[in-house]
Amino acid sequence: MVDTLNPVAQERHRLIASDRVEGTKVYDRKGHKLGSIKNFLVGKVSGQAEYAVIEFGGILGLGNDYYPLPWGMLSYDTDKGGYVVDVTKEQLDDAPRHGAAYPEYDHNYGRRIFDYYAMAYPYPFI
Amino acid sequence: MVDTLNPVAQERHRLIASDRVEGTKVYDRKGHKLGSIKNFLVGKVSGQAEYAVIEFGGILGLGNDYYPLPWGMLSYDTDKGGYVVDVTKEQLDDAPRHGAAYPEYDHNYGRRIFDYYAMAYPYPFI
Repeated sequence: MVDTLNPVAQERHRLIASDRVEGTKVYDRKGHKLGSIKNFLVGKVSGQAEYAVIEFGGILGLGNDYYPLPWGMLSYDTDKGGYVVDVTKEQLDDAPRHGAAYPEYDHNYGRRIFDYYAMAYPYPFI
Repeated sequence: MVDTLNPVAQERHRLIASDRVEGTKVYDRKGHKLGSIKNFLVGKVSGQAEYAVIEFGGILGLGNDYYPLPWGMLSYDTDKGGYVVDVTKEQLDDAPRHGAAYPEYDHNYGRRIFDYYAMAYPYPFI
């Protein structure tokens, strides 16, 4: 039911459950699968999702690398049933990544990530 | 390592992984366990976590009810190893809740939740 006088109040599916984001496939603009979302990082106090961590690579699920992407890069494509990002496999070759032991996602690491994807770092730090 | 000239830049553990939030226990102020976090709801575009859904009740894990709480109510207690919320079991008796089939978390439902916990609804809607 859409309230045509109040479309914003009736925004459907504005929210998504965290465990539905996890496991969602991630594609590049050409439709090639890059990987899937392992999990995403959220500010404990702010509740702001800052990075989606894409699981990619590895053989038979072993030795996967984890690539943090700024949350804003994710765009859901209903046709593909997954997220599309403006990233190519070649770009991932040199992208910030880590193994199963996550590093400290502090502002320095965050700025590295945003820099790599040519985005301005949006979170306040002194 | 703390940069004493720049404490904010060195905020450690500012972020938490989504799959670490899921499953975390939730206590009331008296230390009674209310339940655990089933998952949390995030704005698809904004990336803002809006509701944590607490799984509570039921017998042998069957028939649990799911209670959405505004994200801002969560406060992590390192001693207890879980979240503390200013909610009592009695308050949960009449609180908004649903079963395993989640309702549409639209602005109307959101306002019901915030109203119940005597909080102002913070998300824009027309």
